[in-house]
Amino acid sequence: MGTVRPQIVLFGDSITEQSFRIGGWGAALAHNYSRKADVVVRGYGGYNTRWALFLLHHLFHLSTPTPPVAATIFFGANDAALLGRTSERQHVPVEEYKENLRRIVHHLKECSPTMLVVLITPPPIDEAGRKEYAQSLYGEKAMELPERTNEVTGVYAKQCVELAKELCLPSINLWSKMQETKGWQKKFLSDGLHLTAEGNAVVHQEVVKVFNEAWLPAPEMPYDFPRHSEIDAENPEKVFQQQCL
Amino acid sequence: MGTVRPQIVLFGDSITEQSFRIGGWGAALAHNYSRKADVVVRGYGGYNTRWALFLLHHLFHLSTPTPPVAATIFFGANDAALLGRTSERQHVPVEEYKENLRRIVHHLKECSPTMLVVLITPPPIDEAGRKEYAQSLYGEKAMELPERTNEVTGVYAKQCVELAKELCLPSINLWSKMQETKGWQKKFLSDGLHLTAEGNAVVHQEVVKVFNEAWLPAPEMPYDFPRHSEIDAENPEKVFQQQCL
Repeated sequence: MGTVRPQIVLFGDSITEQSFRIGGWGAALAHNYSRKADVVVRGYGGYNTRWALFLLHHLFHLSTPTPPVAATIFFGANDAALLGRTSERQHVPVEEYKENLRRIVHHLKECSPTMLVVLITPPPIDEAGRKEYAQSLYGEKAMELPERTNEVTGVYAKQCVELAKELCLPSINLWSKMQETKGWQKKFLSDGLHLTAEGNAVVHQEVVKVFNEAWLPAPEMPYDFPRHSEIDAENPEKVFQQQCL
Repeated sequence: MGTVRPQIVLFGDSITEQSFRIGGWGAALAHNYSRKADVVVRGYGGYNTRWALFLLHHLFHLSTPTPPVAATIFFGANDAALLGRTSERQHVPVEEYKENLRRIVHHLKECSPTMLVVLITPPPIDEAGRKEYAQSLYGEKAMELPERTNEVTGVYAKQCVELAKELCLPSINLWSKMQETKGWQKKFLSDGLHLTAEGNAVVHQEVVKVFNEAWLPAPEMPYDFPRHSEIDAENPEKVFQQQCL
């Protein structure tokens, strides 16, 4: 179709893939940018940054005439899975995580140097919540030792924020931000890792803040066509001729 | 960006524009088609079909190499505003409404003869709900006579369904469907016209049903890239080479 509208891409793992559920941060963002920008979800549940690299050239063609105006990069929850535990196949060492993020950013900036790229850290981990969740699925067979810890995920979050500073990009330290609120474990996380509606609201609020501080404030962006109140019912063509050249 | 994913466009008035609010039918549809198709909102609050025609060539370029695979056309709530009442500037005679819809369908089919085009009728009107809403905004100055009636909106709904039959297109008679449920006035409508979360759920359910009966059932469509469980952690490139040619 004829794309006149800017695109905002959400690139990440399951927390991005699920962002259009009821109360999801992606859907809320799409509503904010209604008639202004299209919010495009590219969320891949279970993916770490190593696997995300395989998608880069498929999702973001270097030669596209219409690159996104903005992208969120939201990985790390899977990279931070621990070696020797049940999710070890998703583990990526923290140094490689940082380098993979750097490659993703470089690729996006090669698509478009002006693209607003926002790095988001993984959320904190509620180890007790993860355990309860595993037990609800597997009963007594559930792992004894957590497959992710909050402390280790925090190390990944720190590297994500460090990289953003190095590259002069905005970032959202979700790992820290969520832990500022008492009871974050159950308030923001549904299974110790994925987000509740309130957790989604935190992500949404932080992304809006970053976009507003950058150059993409939804309230100030123009509508893509006249508001209906601007249309002269006797001469509707007039305003369309003026605004839709 | 590199568009490999099919697009589903939601074209309509405010009920489409607001479809990404919490519990909205557009967001729910986007979630259903996660990793399978992009749901693109083209909702224009207050627009009738006459004004929608001005947007057609801007929104749907005839020469685009990637036309949408499906589109919902969801107008009529404004066309059915009554002459001589407060919203008369939005009024479009019912014969013209039908012809405008026909022109929209023809344009989309010209973009792509295989596009699945679904016509959706306006929802029913709760006249008491409209009056309460007007009074909440304007107090005693609120209009004495309703600017829309359920009966007249039903005439538009009927013509919408008739046209779909003439053109062999699927349609959703939302006007009838909603009135099958006792208490539809408050259950499905928030201000006598726009949808509550439960009203959104009805639209969502009906759209999913039509898409499933046509050739676009989300559960059977392929994921755009391997599921993470298909990735061999030792040789991740393997599955990407196989599936991402």
